[in-house]
Amino acid sequence: MNPRDVIRRKRDGNELSRDDIAFFVRGVTRGEIADYQTSALLMAMFMKGMSEAETEALTEEMLRSGEVLDFSPIPLPKADKHSTGGVGDKTSLVVAPLAASCGVCVPMVSGRGLGHSGGTLDKLEAIPGFRVSLPLAEFHAVLERVGFAMIGQTESLAPADRKLYALRDATETVESIPLIIASIMSKKMAAGLDALVLDVKTGSGAFMPDEACARELARSLVATGTRFGVRTEALITDMSQPLGRAVGNALETLECVELLRGEVSEMTRPTLDLSIELAARMVALSGVEAMLDVARVRVRRALETGAALERFRACVEAQGGDARVCDEPARLFDPKLEEVRIESPRGGFITCIDAAEIGRAVAALGGGRTRIEDVIDPAVGFLANAKIGDEVKAGATLGLLYCRGQSAGSQPAARIQAAYEIEDQRTVDPPKLIKEVITA
Amino acid sequence: MNPRDVIRRKRDGNELSRDDIAFFVRGVTRGEIADYQTSALLMAMFMKGMSEAETEALTEEMLRSGEVLDFSPIPLPKADKHSTGGVGDKTSLVVAPLAASCGVCVPMVSGRGLGHSGGTLDKLEAIPGFRVSLPLAEFHAVLERVGFAMIGQTESLAPADRKLYALRDATETVESIPLIIASIMSKKMAAGLDALVLDVKTGSGAFMPDEACARELARSLVATGTRFGVRTEALITDMSQPLGRAVGNALETLECVELLRGEVSEMTRPTLDLSIELAARMVALSGVEAMLDVARVRVRRALETGAALERFRACVEAQGGDARVCDEPARLFDPKLEEVRIESPRGGFITCIDAAEIGRAVAALGGGRTRIEDVIDPAVGFLANAKIGDEVKAGATLGLLYCRGQSAGSQPAARIQAAYEIEDQRTVDPPKLIKEVITA
Repeated sequence: MNPRDVIRRKRDGNELSRDDIAFFVRGVTRGEIADYQTSALLMAMFMKGMSEAETEALTEEMLRSGEVLDFSPIPLPKADKHSTGGVGDKTSLVVAPLAASCGVCVPMVSGRGLGHSGGTLDKLEAIPGFRVSLPLAEFHAVLERVGFAMIGQTESLAPADRKLYALRDATETVESIPLIIASIMSKKMAAGLDALVLDVKTGSGAFMPDEACARELARSLVATGTRFGVRTEALITDMSQPLGRAVGNALETLECVELLRGEVSEMTRPTLDLSIELAARMVALSGVEAMLDVARVRVRRALETGAALERFRACVEAQGGDARVCDEPARLFDPKLEEVRIESPRGGFITCIDAAEIGRAVAALGGGRTRIEDVIDPAVGFLANAKIGDEVKAGATLGLLYCRGQSAGSQPAARIQAAYEIEDQRTVDPPKLIKEVITA
Repeated sequence: MNPRDVIRRKRDGNELSRDDIAFFVRGVTRGEIADYQTSALLMAMFMKGMSEAETEALTEEMLRSGEVLDFSPIPLPKADKHSTGGVGDKTSLVVAPLAASCGVCVPMVSGRGLGHSGGTLDKLEAIPGFRVSLPLAEFHAVLERVGFAMIGQTESLAPADRKLYALRDATETVESIPLIIASIMSKKMAAGLDALVLDVKTGSGAFMPDEACARELARSLVATGTRFGVRTEALITDMSQPLGRAVGNALETLECVELLRGEVSEMTRPTLDLSIELAARMVALSGVEAMLDVARVRVRRALETGAALERFRACVEAQGGDARVCDEPARLFDPKLEEVRIESPRGGFITCIDAAEIGRAVAALGGGRTRIEDVIDPAVGFLANAKIGDEVKAGATLGLLYCRGQSAGSQPAARIQAAYEIEDQRTVDPPKLIKEVITA
């Protein structure tokens, strides 16, 4: 077999065999196929699509390209959640300790932010000292002791995905449902899970803004997980505006710690509501509780009793972070930042928010990446003060931008201001946070 | 601008602007765009196609990526012919001296064989000492003295094409009409021509076997040449069987020298007929003769008087080759070769020949390349003894294979034998050599 044969078959719209896909994934993993051949094949896959059988084969070969984790010595069901990513999407930091404090083992392998969307690893690293790259033995030890642990993708976990993702990012072949499925699920299936809850975002800040596409993606993800023997569910959730209040790594972590401490406001409530729902579904899906309603009650109780906060503290300590942020979340705020108030240019009702533009504006401040290798400033960010459906007066505060010097903030502030559409009439209702549940 | 923007636009089926294409071609030429991005864009171009405007812009930017030759000090019209390639397609060696001896200056820049098809440079190098890589000053000097010269693509001529072609070859994006047009025409337009005759092959040994595709390609090539101010015509010619008798570099050169010497057989006549027609069209199109019929007569006379042979001899001498091959063409045959007779397995009529398979069988003997970097054995090859429409008896000689040792020849011989379809009834007529003429 030859890489060109595989490229030609996909180029011509033929279905690739399991052997074709295995040959390709192994060649990529071993560095035996040239990047320019891989990217040509990725573009052909992007443009011609992939059948269910091809997607499953690709997922499995990518999963097999590295180590498959085995947490069976830990006598608890293992579950994780994965989000397709968004702006202010910070639930992992709340979900993992909630689920863990209900008796679910959560071996969470997360990513970094890129483009307009953030990443869990960056938020965790906003906590001084927090180490996201643990050796697998240490990951295992933290999991055993704390019930959850949060690390970055390791060299040994689905290495084919790392190579393929970097090429997809450089060649505009990211937004392909089968390639997304294989990328997400190969990593998740390599983590030795019993259950997986997916948070598929839709709306202006999502990776796939269109709801029909999000639904298709969610269905395929659930089908793929199920085929691999993992109990899988997906929520389709709103990303037509930033989730909760904060956008920016340290500010988002601060929001999460406050929520774990029971400090909730009107602006941060959606983050909490979604986190509770995701955690409850992990608890139910993994069999810790048979009934979802009971799981919800149990998750709420873990929050109210402070059990979840204590789990979070234990994880921060175990992973080398400064656990004082649990008692004084304001430590996550850098007082040297300048505050820029973003005013509403007119009175009226907020009808639409370009969430991705807010994400990009924060990235432009240094809070995110345009390229994988960019170094970020975890402190900068945005705190939203208004949401879709709210009535605002002219000059009211839409939000506060935190930046390094007033001049650095002026352009991003203008971009954020322009991201809000304000009309005379209340033409839209506040968006529903959880739009749909997709089950196997 | 960013390579990703250009990739995304083409991926989504949008027309690229002149600026997009200029940015891309310059980036490729300067090595500023990664190969994996280039190949992703080539695949998107292959799959989405290119408009006329895009094709023209690509051609012009590729042409401008290097030097444009200027032969204006030579006071003769400049013309060339280009073939899309085939099996046994050796006319350049006959056409160039024919046209030159009629007063056309022929600055021929040729290529090498790849896959099933041969290349002029390899055939020339079968002549001991013949140098195909002349410095441009020497190319100019030979042209001036002899009236034609034959070299390989230089570093400075359309360098973008060299890079793009290598990537296209590795990523199965060769057979795209707009990419073929830009590749061929950027090189030809860089050679400072007044007239260009294209030989677009169709049939089992052609690059584009389908006649409708060949016609589309021919029309686009003629349109592109015309737009660049070069008088351009195309012939659509038969490649449903090897052209003439020989397939293999030295054997093909031998056939050409014999034809220039006036030695013609039933099997080699198509090579001569096509060469005369191509040369006559160059003579007419470049304005040396106003009437095509008169041009044909003049070309035939150049052959009969030996003027063309003398031109060929002068070129061989000027380019360092052993001109004794002109007097003793058998010098081109290596007597150490083994001869394997390929028998007809049955009696009947030859109805179909897989010409590409014959090309590949000769390549497998060492006479051609599977990869650009392969080293070839110019001596090996095949001499056909029968053609489509011929009646053969069981055991009759379909052809003779010349190889290094009997064992090396057994598999290729079997492949060639299997490439001939023989049926009881004469179900097809001999194919017409020249199927159509496409003019501007």
